[in-house]
Amino acid sequence: MRGAIICIGDELISGRVAERNSRFAMSRLSPLGFEIASSIWVGDDMKAIAGALDQALAQASFVVVSGGLGSTEDDITAQAAARHFGLEIAESRRMIQNLKACFLAVGREVPPGVERMAQLPQGAEVLDKSCAGFMLTTPAQQPVYFLPGIPQENHRLLETHVLPDLMRRFAPQKVMVSQKFTVFGLGESEIAQRLDGLVAGYPEVSVGYYPVFPAEEVLLATRTSEPHRAEVLLNELFAEASHRLGGKVVAQGEQSLADSVAQRLSAEGLTLALAESCTGGLVGHLITGVSGASDFLDRGLITYSNRAKMELLGVEARVLNEHGAVSAETAAQMAAGARLESGVDLGLAVTGIAGPTGGSEEKPVGTVYFGLAAEDGVKTLHRRFMGDRAQIKLMSAWTALDMLRRYLEDHAFLHRP
Amino acid sequence: MRGAIICIGDELISGRVAERNSRFAMSRLSPLGFEIASSIWVGDDMKAIAGALDQALAQASFVVVSGGLGSTEDDITAQAAARHFGLEIAESRRMIQNLKACFLAVGREVPPGVERMAQLPQGAEVLDKSCAGFMLTTPAQQPVYFLPGIPQENHRLLETHVLPDLMRRFAPQKVMVSQKFTVFGLGESEIAQRLDGLVAGYPEVSVGYYPVFPAEEVLLATRTSEPHRAEVLLNELFAEASHRLGGKVVAQGEQSLADSVAQRLSAEGLTLALAESCTGGLVGHLITGVSGASDFLDRGLITYSNRAKMELLGVEARVLNEHGAVSAETAAQMAAGARLESGVDLGLAVTGIAGPTGGSEEKPVGTVYFGLAAEDGVKTLHRRFMGDRAQIKLMSAWTALDMLRRYLEDHAFLHRP
Repeated sequence: MRGAIICIGDELISGRVAERNSRFAMSRLSPLGFEIASSIWVGDDMKAIAGALDQALAQASFVVVSGGLGSTEDDITAQAAARHFGLEIAESRRMIQNLKACFLAVGREVPPGVERMAQLPQGAEVLDKSCAGFMLTTPAQQPVYFLPGIPQENHRLLETHVLPDLMRRFAPQKVMVSQKFTVFGLGESEIAQRLDGLVAGYPEVSVGYYPVFPAEEVLLATRTSEPHRAEVLLNELFAEASHRLGGKVVAQGEQSLADSVAQRLSAEGLTLALAESCTGGLVGHLITGVSGASDFLDRGLITYSNRAKMELLGVEARVLNEHGAVSAETAAQMAAGARLESGVDLGLAVTGIAGPTGGSEEKPVGTVYFGLAAEDGVKTLHRRFMGDRAQIKLMSAWTALDMLRRYLEDHAFLHRP
Repeated sequence: MRGAIICIGDELISGRVAERNSRFAMSRLSPLGFEIASSIWVGDDMKAIAGALDQALAQASFVVVSGGLGSTEDDITAQAAARHFGLEIAESRRMIQNLKACFLAVGREVPPGVERMAQLPQGAEVLDKSCAGFMLTTPAQQPVYFLPGIPQENHRLLETHVLPDLMRRFAPQKVMVSQKFTVFGLGESEIAQRLDGLVAGYPEVSVGYYPVFPAEEVLLATRTSEPHRAEVLLNELFAEASHRLGGKVVAQGEQSLADSVAQRLSAEGLTLALAESCTGGLVGHLITGVSGASDFLDRGLITYSNRAKMELLGVEARVLNEHGAVSAETAAQMAAGARLESGVDLGLAVTGIAGPTGGSEEKPVGTVYFGLAAEDGVKTLHRRFMGDRAQIKLMSAWTALDMLRRYLEDHAFLHRP
């Protein structure tokens, strides 16, 4: 079953604003087995919108249109749709009700001019709880969904209305069940190779790969009339995938790596201190992106200078002289120092060369050492990354968090009183 | 003059990979006065590519096509173009030379299979120094540029070949001159209002606004046959814009706010220490994104707990008790402590409530205090931001860097020996 996507807005085709709805729709439709014939972007222009609708309806069984449904004069998608389908424009009582409810929820009346958003093509079906979205069906029974361009609202309506409606129409009695997870430390081709044949016996299950630097998201998905059975199957497939990926699955569902580290630290009641050199605060930034990080994070020390490494972390001048600031020995003393100086359970350290300058033959740009200090001792890790400064910082920060994640997984028994 | 954009790739229309060439082309073409009729995305499919070329050539005087020029079997853009224009496919000697030169530059021979990239429609003009890009001209004299999908190469060829070629064809003897700058601390509508009438006497100069959260980029651009005069004019207009925006211009050209702060710190020979609470390391991350940050950044202290604020920065228990961790008094002691404890010239501090929890009636989520300590005393600043945790962190980090930027601008006379 093929669909088409249309995105409308002068701000899009001038490049002023990044388009955020097209890819979202594609990434949700593809795993459900819907193929996308094309995605067409046009400006707020009567003729261009009509042309896009013509093209889309010639190729596809359904169309998802985003944008141009606002209250200002340049928003003309509803009029363009009416003209294209030969329909009159009329005020939709249902949409007026929705608008009143939306504004009432924030204690306001509908401002003048906003009623314009209720001027819809006759016969348009207003989407539930939406202040702008509606649907038309062509004589050939092709549904055309019109969604507002604001990404949050657009994505919500796609998930709650468009996808279920498409499933009802084109895949009766089937629902979508999926299992998403994040893999770090393996390239896409390596992951694909390890998962080769995973779903061989299950032609209804698809595997999708979505690179989100520096990690990879993997989506197992199926359309089914027996959701409970499918969930059991996907859980088994996920367990098998995790096994094959050898501990490189760093988070499940919508969780990030930082979320899964934070969750485990909170659950175990463990406290953390950071010692960062080349990442410059990025590890702290990632872990404090999780709400509630103050429960476990005591402090982070961005020790950019050697003096700071000595003063704040107790790194020895001898170690810095003999092994250099970028060395396993320094990383170990940084981690141990962060743990001891702050009196926490765990110290996590990163030191490396993010480039583009500062590399040498012995220690080229991208050389990074990691240290993790705990009650039972200090571990270190050495990596050599390729990429620009921003990429090396990001890979280093992820590797540090992942080192901590693996430690916490291996020591799950270490509950605090 | 209207153009159209086509992006080709199964990975795009499945939503697997974010499309990065379409918006780039639009954002470069628009300021030059080229209007975009549409942007069409299709998969690696003969019929779909042909359909997209038909649509694009019906609407536009030129077409920029990206993607599907690689060496694997699913890359069929060159064949689709040949079939669509009724041309034979032949090996391009020029492209073979380019491929050899590309691989020679990294000390390798052209790997088997890669010669496939030299199989082009007869009459195709190979783009200079490109291993994949070429151009065809339709009987109606419409240039169709075929660029590789890899963003870096795509953008390079667009800038070095496509834009100059379009200017030659459609705007003879005119070149593009532009002046870009970044504004922080004013919304788009406020900026537009302050710049209202700025270019009123110069119909050939356009003003474009490009939001890049939490800042706004403004682009003054013109096509001209007298580039030197245009540069002088744009410099004058930029000076007038800066004046009207009252010091809210935080960076010029391709520089970021962090770049301009770093540049000034290095130029003045001043050293810096950070004390971050709610930003959790983000200020450090932004400033260490600049290569050479080790010249001025001594350390950063992510003092998430009150204990860390006292131990590392000498914040007094009395201040924390009486005023709270999120207060002007604490921000001032954090900044002064960072400066004194590390023996640097400047201490910069942030403390606030990033949410979604932790707010109160008196200090709601988004309340943030800043401190800047220097030889001549300590300043503080209070802001209340709206948004989610990630947005509040980002606005806080930018505000901290901007506070430092303004201090450095006001104290430009303070040269060190």
